[in-house]
Amino acid sequence: MLSIEWTASQGWLAPRITPYQNLSLDPATCVFHYAFECFEGMKAYKNSDGQVRLFRPEKNMARLNKSSARIALPNFTGKAFIDLISKFAAIEERFIPAARGFSLYLRPTMIGTQRTLGVGPPGSALLYLIASPVGPYYPTGFRAVSLEATDYAVRAWPGGVGDMKLGANYAPCIVPQLQAAKRGFHQNLWLFGKEEFVTEVGTMNFFACIKDKETGKNKLMTAPLDGTILEGVMRDSVLDLAKERLKPEGWEVEERKFTMGELADAADEGRLIEAFGTGTAAVVSPVRKISWKGRLVECGLNEDQEAGDVTKRMKAWIEGIQYGDEDHSWSWKI
Amino acid sequence: MLSIEWTASQGWLAPRITPYQNLSLDPATCVFHYAFECFEGMKAYKNSDGQVRLFRPEKNMARLNKSSARIALPNFTGKAFIDLISKFAAIEERFIPAARGFSLYLRPTMIGTQRTLGVGPPGSALLYLIASPVGPYYPTGFRAVSLEATDYAVRAWPGGVGDMKLGANYAPCIVPQLQAAKRGFHQNLWLFGKEEFVTEVGTMNFFACIKDKETGKNKLMTAPLDGTILEGVMRDSVLDLAKERLKPEGWEVEERKFTMGELADAADEGRLIEAFGTGTAAVVSPVRKISWKGRLVECGLNEDQEAGDVTKRMKAWIEGIQYGDEDHSWSWKI
Repeated sequence: MLSIEWTASQGWLAPRITPYQNLSLDPATCVFHYAFECFEGMKAYKNSDGQVRLFRPEKNMARLNKSSARIALPNFTGKAFIDLISKFAAIEERFIPAARGFSLYLRPTMIGTQRTLGVGPPGSALLYLIASPVGPYYPTGFRAVSLEATDYAVRAWPGGVGDMKLGANYAPCIVPQLQAAKRGFHQNLWLFGKEEFVTEVGTMNFFACIKDKETGKNKLMTAPLDGTILEGVMRDSVLDLAKERLKPEGWEVEERKFTMGELADAADEGRLIEAFGTGTAAVVSPVRKISWKGRLVECGLNEDQEAGDVTKRMKAWIEGIQYGDEDHSWSWKI
Repeated sequence: MLSIEWTASQGWLAPRITPYQNLSLDPATCVFHYAFECFEGMKAYKNSDGQVRLFRPEKNMARLNKSSARIALPNFTGKAFIDLISKFAAIEERFIPAARGFSLYLRPTMIGTQRTLGVGPPGSALLYLIASPVGPYYPTGFRAVSLEATDYAVRAWPGGVGDMKLGANYAPCIVPQLQAAKRGFHQNLWLFGKEEFVTEVGTMNFFACIKDKETGKNKLMTAPLDGTILEGVMRDSVLDLAKERLKPEGWEVEERKFTMGELADAADEGRLIEAFGTGTAAVVSPVRKISWKGRLVECGLNEDQEAGDVTKRMKAWIEGIQYGDEDHSWSWKI
């Protein structure tokens, strides 16, 4: 693991790469009481020629700094941390499987370490990185998930912190997730407001492909970054690739608020082509159906189909970049 | 410290009272990543004859169980935990100063301890209690605080978890608090919605005493428990005492939504009698003024006055019960 301690008086101390080990913390440490904690999820990929790569790590670093600043934890220079992650990945290179779909999951984490029950800015912090080899999210090919549209619990709010990768955003989502699971659904689709705006899925951003009612044109759409949506690296990548590669085919690409009602209408009228979630774990995760107000909204897949065409192409494009098949500025060679 | 471990398969293990010591936790423990943590704040009081007392501990236990259930952590029988706290307080009795205003602050805390980066219900947890002697919140008598009405950051929202004592509710409030402090104010007064409803103060509930415009009657009011307000034990106690002891004097007692505009109008018309926060730390905390939209709303205190009459009487009544001057069912003898 990689560890870097910070104190308000001394700033960042020397980074250390050590064997994986427990953290020994006073029970009054502020991370246990007031959720001074934020993290990132990223991966190191190795292709068949042994080259190790990171995917858009500067985006993770920018978001980590945004998260930490929002909860009065310190910032760390993004470039310097990427250098440290690169060193770490080079040392642990034997844990990165050289096969498509496999990678080394990297978890940068920052916690407040001051021993105090006073509610105030932490005077000390620890930035650490742990890692684990991971296999393909869908080892036997895509498996479409089913969602439960959720309005009784609200993940994020304007003026809140739902756009940050804070620990605070996660624990409150587990009970709604268990309740959805009990009713046979994999994840929550978080709705917002009386308009029932579609925001995001469980721990992923959400995309829908619809045929426009007026123009008949194909549209890829996702909710805008209005402070209630996690600013996903995969979300951003899908949007960029869609503009570059789907627009020339006649697709429109929209970041805008849309409602569950709109989605349901599109489904009813045969205009909902496909839907998927995006995130670091699965890249893209196809959605089969959404439970909403006692009905099931079918998301464009046939019974024998586990993913739509855009979903499959996005996965292929992004993995091609992640593993270096395609030479692209998003892929950083270590 | 008092520690009780829990696992999903074995339930609660035997409670242990041990010397204060660090917690040794794997860096992948879920409390560091997803804010599986909740706590309570309570005090043990000792009066001059050496009798140790708790104040309404059953309320704290009920809230702790409500908090823990909301983030998929286990419940513990309230009565059994009060017995353990009582044993703990008896063992540590020498740390409870026998003087008015002094007490032993008790911090029950529950954290998720499962080693996993998967986002799901923790399979293990630790409930622990640490304590520290504390002195009077206002050693030289009341000092009225000034507040900044805050609308750019939102502490809590309907369908969220702002009514629970979760770590998740605290870290996001520090930056707004620092910003208020930079402008010379002690705490945030959290407003909600375009109506600018007054919700609570920093880490306290908020009460205002106004003279009703129509009837001329005195009114004590506080925001209702609509899911966005912490369900404060002191808030509940103030409401009960007001109904019992102020109503016979002609006061009206209201739990209702009221806006910052209403407060400002009352101040402008000389009808804002006094305002105060309530919490375990200070019992009551008088408010001098509130910064709102570039103006200062004065809360009824003269320049040479640090607390209003209701604030002073509430403190005297509640402390009288806490230290056993008044025999009352809220005070539990150990």
